[in-house]
Amino acid sequence: MLADAGIVLTEDERASLEVTDFGLGLLDEIGLQLVVYVNTERVCAKELVLLPGQTCPEHRHPPVDGSPGKEETFRCRTGSVTLWVDGRGEVMLQPGEQFTIPPDTLHWFRAGDEGAIVSEFSTRSRDDTTVFTDPRVRR
Amino acid sequence: MLADAGIVLTEDERASLEVTDFGLGLLDEIGLQLVVYVNTERVCAKELVLLPGQTCPEHRHPPVDGSPGKEETFRCRTGSVTLWVDGRGEVMLQPGEQFTIPPDTLHWFRAGDEGAIVSEFSTRSRDDTTVFTDPRVRR
Repeated sequence: MLADAGIVLTEDERASLEVTDFGLGLLDEIGLQLVVYVNTERVCAKELVLLPGQTCPEHRHPPVDGSPGKEETFRCRTGSVTLWVDGRGEVMLQPGEQFTIPPDTLHWFRAGDEGAIVSEFSTRSRDDTTVFTDPRVRR
Repeated sequence: MLADAGIVLTEDERASLEVTDFGLGLLDEIGLQLVVYVNTERVCAKELVLLPGQTCPEHRHPPVDGSPGKEETFRCRTGSVTLWVDGRGEVMLQPGEQFTIPPDTLHWFRAGDEGAIVSEFSTRSRDDTTVFTDPRVRR
Protein backbone atom coordinates (compact mmCIF):
# COMPACT_ATOMS: atom_id res chain seq x y z
CA MET A 1 0.00 0.00 0.00
CA LEU A 2 2.84 2.41 0.84
CA ALA A 3 4.61 1.81 -2.48
CA ASP A 4 1.33 2.27 -4.39
CA ALA A 5 0.98 5.65 -2.66
CA GLY A 6 4.45 6.70 -3.84
CA ILE A 7 5.88 6.44 -0.32
CA VAL A 8 9.47 5.19 -0.39
CA LEU A 9 10.93 3.42 2.66
CA THR A 10 14.51 2.42 3.34
CA GLU A 11 15.32 -1.28 3.78
CA ASP A 12 15.65 -0.75 7.52
CA GLU A 13 12.22 0.87 7.66
CA ARG A 14 10.62 -1.95 5.66
CA ALA A 15 12.22 -4.45 8.04
CA SER A 16 10.99 -2.58 11.13
CA LEU A 17 7.43 -1.94 9.94
CA GLU A 18 5.30 -2.68 12.99
CA VAL A 19 2.06 -4.65 12.98
CA THR A 20 -0.02 -4.62 16.14
CA ASP A 21 -3.31 -6.32 17.01
CA PHE A 22 -3.35 -4.51 20.37
CA GLY A 23 -3.24 -7.93 22.05
CA LEU A 24 -6.81 -8.75 21.03
CA GLY A 25 -6.08 -11.36 18.32
CA LEU A 26 -8.47 -9.72 15.83
CA LEU A 27 -5.96 -8.00 13.56
CA ASP A 28 -8.29 -7.57 10.58
CA GLU A 29 -10.79 -5.69 12.75
CA ILE A 30 -8.67 -4.06 15.45
CA GLY A 31 -5.11 -3.35 14.52
CA LEU A 32 -2.61 -1.04 12.95
CA GLN A 33 0.49 -1.16 10.75
CA LEU A 34 2.98 1.65 11.16
CA VAL A 35 6.41 2.91 10.26
CA VAL A 36 8.08 5.47 12.52
CA TYR A 37 10.21 7.96 10.59
CA VAL A 38 11.50 9.93 13.55
CA ASN A 39 10.75 10.11 17.28
CA THR A 40 12.94 12.55 19.20
CA GLU A 41 12.31 14.18 22.57
CA ARG A 42 10.30 16.86 20.75
CA VAL A 43 8.91 15.62 17.42
CA CYS A 44 7.54 12.39 15.97
CA ALA A 45 6.40 11.49 12.44
CA LYS A 46 4.88 8.19 11.33
CA GLU A 47 2.90 6.65 8.52
CA LEU A 48 -0.10 4.66 9.76
CA VAL A 49 -1.47 2.00 7.42
CA LEU A 50 -4.98 0.67 8.01
CA LEU A 51 -6.56 -2.31 6.29
CA PRO A 52 -10.14 -1.91 5.02
CA GLY A 53 -12.42 -1.40 8.03
CA GLN A 54 -9.55 -1.80 10.52
CA THR A 55 -9.90 0.19 13.76
CA CYS A 56 -7.35 1.67 16.15
CA PRO A 57 -9.16 1.44 19.51
CA GLU A 58 -10.11 4.37 21.74
CA HIS A 59 -7.25 5.89 23.72
CA ARG A 60 -5.72 9.11 24.98
CA HIS A 61 -2.20 10.43 25.60
CA PRO A 62 -2.13 11.89 29.12
CA PRO A 63 0.31 14.47 30.51
CA VAL A 64 3.71 12.99 31.33
CA ASP A 65 6.92 14.40 32.83
CA GLY A 66 5.54 17.95 32.99
CA SER A 67 4.49 17.95 29.32
CA PRO A 68 0.76 18.28 28.49
CA GLY A 69 0.66 14.95 26.64
CA LYS A 70 1.01 14.00 23.00
CA GLU A 71 -0.54 16.29 20.39
CA GLU A 72 -1.29 14.55 17.08
CA THR A 73 -2.18 15.72 13.61
CA PHE A 74 -3.61 12.98 11.37
CA ARG A 75 -3.40 13.67 7.63
CA CYS A 76 -5.14 11.24 5.29
CA ARG A 77 -2.93 10.34 2.29
CA THR A 78 -4.97 7.62 0.57
CA GLY A 79 -8.31 5.90 1.14
CA SER A 80 -10.46 7.35 3.89
CA VAL A 81 -10.58 7.27 7.66
CA THR A 82 -13.27 8.08 10.20
CA LEU A 83 -11.75 9.71 13.26
CA TRP A 84 -13.75 10.11 16.46
CA VAL A 85 -12.52 12.75 18.90
CA ASP A 86 -14.01 13.41 22.33
CA GLY A 87 -15.84 16.74 22.30
CA ARG A 88 -15.91 16.85 18.51
CA GLY A 89 -17.51 13.59 17.39
CA GLU A 90 -16.79 11.82 14.10
CA VAL A 91 -14.66 13.47 11.45
CA MET A 92 -14.32 11.82 8.02
CA LEU A 93 -10.94 12.45 6.43
CA GLN A 94 -10.36 12.01 2.68
CA PRO A 95 -6.94 12.35 0.99
CA GLY A 96 -5.42 15.76 1.74
CA GLU A 97 -7.66 16.34 4.78
CA GLN A 98 -6.33 16.42 8.32
CA PHE A 99 -7.34 16.97 11.94
CA THR A 100 -5.30 17.95 15.01
CA ILE A 101 -6.14 16.11 18.24
CA PRO A 102 -5.32 18.01 21.45
CA PRO A 103 -3.32 16.26 24.19
CA ASP A 104 -5.13 13.97 26.66
CA THR A 105 -8.24 13.72 24.44
CA LEU A 106 -9.96 10.37 23.85
CA HIS A 107 -9.99 9.31 20.18
CA TRP A 108 -10.25 6.29 17.88
CA PHE A 109 -10.17 5.86 14.13
CA ARG A 110 -11.34 3.36 11.52
CA ALA A 111 -10.42 3.01 7.86
CA GLY A 112 -13.06 3.03 5.12
CA ASP A 113 -13.63 0.22 2.60
CA GLU A 114 -10.34 0.85 0.77
CA GLY A 115 -8.17 1.06 3.87
CA ALA A 116 -6.12 4.19 4.49
CA ILE A 117 -2.67 5.63 4.77
CA VAL A 118 -2.50 8.37 7.39
CA SER A 119 0.54 10.55 8.13
CA GLU A 120 0.87 11.38 11.81
CA PHE A 121 2.76 14.51 12.90
CA SER A 122 3.10 14.79 16.67
CA THR A 123 5.09 15.52 19.75
CA ARG A 124 7.16 12.65 21.21
CA SER A 125 5.45 9.25 20.96
CA ARG A 126 5.44 7.02 24.06
CA ASP A 127 3.50 3.76 23.90
CA ASP A 128 4.08 3.14 27.62
CA THR A 129 1.96 6.09 28.76
CA THR A 130 -0.96 5.76 26.31
CA VAL A 131 -4.24 4.97 28.10
CA PHE A 132 -6.65 2.68 26.23
CA THR A 133 -10.31 2.62 27.24
CA ASP A 134 -10.57 -1.17 26.84
CA PRO A 135 -8.46 -2.67 29.67
CA ARG A 136 -7.75 -5.78 27.53
CA VAL A 137 -5.74 -3.72 25.03
CA ARG A 138 -1.97 -4.32 25.16
CA ARG A 139 0.49 -2.23 23.16
CA MET B 1 5.43 17.87 -8.87
CA LEU B 2 3.36 17.20 -5.72
CA ALA B 3 0.56 15.50 -7.68
CA ASP B 4 3.10 13.37 -9.58
CA ALA B 5 4.44 12.22 -6.21
CA GLY B 6 0.95 11.14 -5.10
CA ILE B 7 0.68 14.01 -2.61
CA VAL B 8 -2.88 15.32 -2.41
CA LEU B 9 -3.52 18.90 -1.27
CA THR B 10 -6.81 20.56 -0.41
CA GLU B 11 -7.94 23.53 -2.50
CA ASP B 12 -7.00 25.88 0.35
CA GLU B 13 -3.50 24.38 0.49
CA ARG B 14 -3.03 24.68 -3.29
CA ALA B 15 -4.12 28.32 -3.06
CA SER B 16 -1.75 29.05 -0.18
CA LEU B 17 1.31 27.28 -1.60
CA GLU B 18 4.17 29.66 -0.87
CA VAL B 19 6.93 30.58 -3.31
CA THR B 20 9.90 32.52 -1.94
CA ASP B 21 13.01 33.86 -3.65
CA PHE B 22 14.38 34.98 -0.26
CA GLY B 23 14.34 38.55 -1.59
CA LEU B 24 17.25 37.90 -3.97
CA GLY B 25 15.35 37.88 -7.28
CA LEU B 26 17.02 34.66 -8.46
CA LEU B 27 14.19 32.19 -7.86
CA ASP B 28 15.49 29.46 -10.18
CA GLU B 29 18.78 29.37 -8.26
CA ILE B 30 17.86 30.46 -4.74
CA GLY B 31 14.33 29.79 -3.69
CA LEU B 32 11.80 27.40 -2.24
CA GLN B 33 8.21 26.37 -2.74
CA LEU B 34 6.37 25.07 0.30
CA VAL B 35 3.05 24.01 1.73
CA VAL B 36 2.55 24.08 5.49
CA TYR B 37 0.27 21.28 6.72
CA VAL B 38 0.28 22.20 10.39
CA ASN B 39 2.18 24.60 12.64
CA THR B 40 1.08 24.58 16.27
CA GLU B 41 2.97 25.74 19.36
CA ARG B 42 4.64 22.32 19.47
CA VAL B 43 4.71 20.65 16.05
CA CYS B 44 5.11 21.66 12.40
CA ALA B 45 4.92 19.63 9.19
CA LYS B 46 5.55 20.92 5.66
CA GLU B 47 6.31 19.71 2.17
CA LEU B 48 9.24 21.56 0.59
CA VAL B 49 9.42 21.55 -3.21
CA LEU B 50 12.71 22.40 -4.88
CA LEU B 51 13.25 23.03 -8.59
CA PRO B 52 16.26 21.35 -10.23
CA GLY B 53 19.42 22.83 -8.70
CA GLN B 54 17.45 25.26 -6.52
CA THR B 55 19.07 26.13 -3.17
CA CYS B 56 17.65 27.16 0.21
CA PRO B 57 20.37 29.45 1.58
CA GLU B 58 22.37 28.87 4.76
CA HIS B 59 20.52 29.63 7.99
CA ARG B 60 19.93 28.50 11.57
CA HIS B 61 17.00 28.52 14.00
CA PRO B 62 18.25 30.01 17.29
CA PRO B 63 16.75 29.55 20.77
CA VAL B 64 13.62 31.61 21.32
CA ASP B 65 11.28 32.16 24.27
CA GLY B 66 13.09 29.63 26.46
CA SER B 67 12.93 26.89 23.80
CA PRO B 68 16.22 25.54 22.35
CA GLY B 69 15.28 26.53 18.77
CA LYS B 70 13.66 24.64 15.92
CA GLU B 71 14.62 20.99 15.42
CA GLU B 72 14.04 19.75 11.86
CA THR B 73 13.95 16.35 10.21
CA PHE B 74 14.18 16.45 6.41
CA ARG B 75 12.91 13.35 4.60
CA CYS B 76 13.46 13.14 0.85
CA ARG B 77 10.33 11.94 -0.97
CA THR B 78 11.31 12.33 -4.65
CA GLY B 79 14.40 13.46 -6.56
CA SER B 80 17.48 14.11 -4.48
CA VAL B 81 18.77 16.83 -2.20
CA THR B 82 22.21 17.70 -0.87
CA LEU B 83 21.98 18.94 2.70
CA TRP B 84 24.92 20.67 4.36
CA VAL B 85 24.89 20.74 8.16
CA ASP B 86 27.47 22.50 10.32
CA GLY B 87 29.64 19.93 12.11
CA ARG B 88 28.52 17.16 9.76
CA GLY B 89 29.23 18.39 6.22
CA GLU B 90 27.26 17.40 3.13
CA VAL B 91 24.65 14.65 3.31
CA MET B 92 23.02 13.43 0.09
CA LEU B 93 19.42 12.33 0.58
CA GLN B 94 17.64 10.06 -1.90
CA PRO B 95 13.94 9.07 -1.64
CA GLY B 96 13.23 7.46 1.74
CA GLU B 97 16.36 8.91 3.34
CA GLN B 98 16.27 11.54 6.07
CA PHE B 99 18.42 13.59 8.42
CA THR B 100 17.61 15.37 11.70
CA ILE B 101 19.16 18.83 12.16
CA PRO B 102 19.67 19.88 15.78
CA PRO B 103 18.42 23.33 16.91
CA ASP B 104 20.57 26.40 16.25
CA THR B 105 22.76 24.59 13.70
CA LEU B 106 23.72 26.25 10.39
CA HIS B 107 22.46 24.38 7.33
CA TRP B 108 21.55 24.79 3.66
CA PHE B 109 20.23 22.44 1.02
CA ARG B 110 20.16 22.16 -2.76
CA ALA B 111 18.11 19.92 -5.05
CA GLY B 112 19.71 17.62 -7.60
CA ASP B 113 19.05 17.68 -11.35
CA GLU B 114 15.47 16.39 -11.02
CA GLY B 115 14.46 18.75 -8.23
CA ALA B 116 13.16 17.31 -4.97
CA ILE B 117 10.20 16.99 -2.67
CA VAL B 118 11.25 16.98 0.97
CA SER B 119 8.95 16.41 3.95
CA GLU B 120 9.92 18.49 6.96
CA PHE B 121 8.90 17.37 10.47
CA SER B 122 9.83 19.89 13.14
CA THR B 123 9.02 21.84 16.24
CA ARG B 124 7.15 25.15 15.77
CA SER B 125 8.20 27.09 12.65
CA ARG B 126 8.89 30.82 13.03
CA ASP B 127 10.19 32.71 10.01
CA ASP B 128 10.76 35.84 12.11
CA THR B 129 13.50 34.33 14.25
CA THR B 130 15.43 32.43 11.54
CA VAL B 131 18.95 33.80 11.06
CA PHE B 132 20.32 33.72 7.50
CA THR B 133 24.07 33.97 6.94
CA ASP B 134 23.65 36.28 3.89
CA PRO B 135 22.35 39.60 5.28
CA ARG B 136 20.57 40.33 1.96
CA VAL B 137 18.17 37.42 2.48
CA ARG B 138 14.60 38.39 3.37
CA ARG B 139 11.97 35.88 4.39
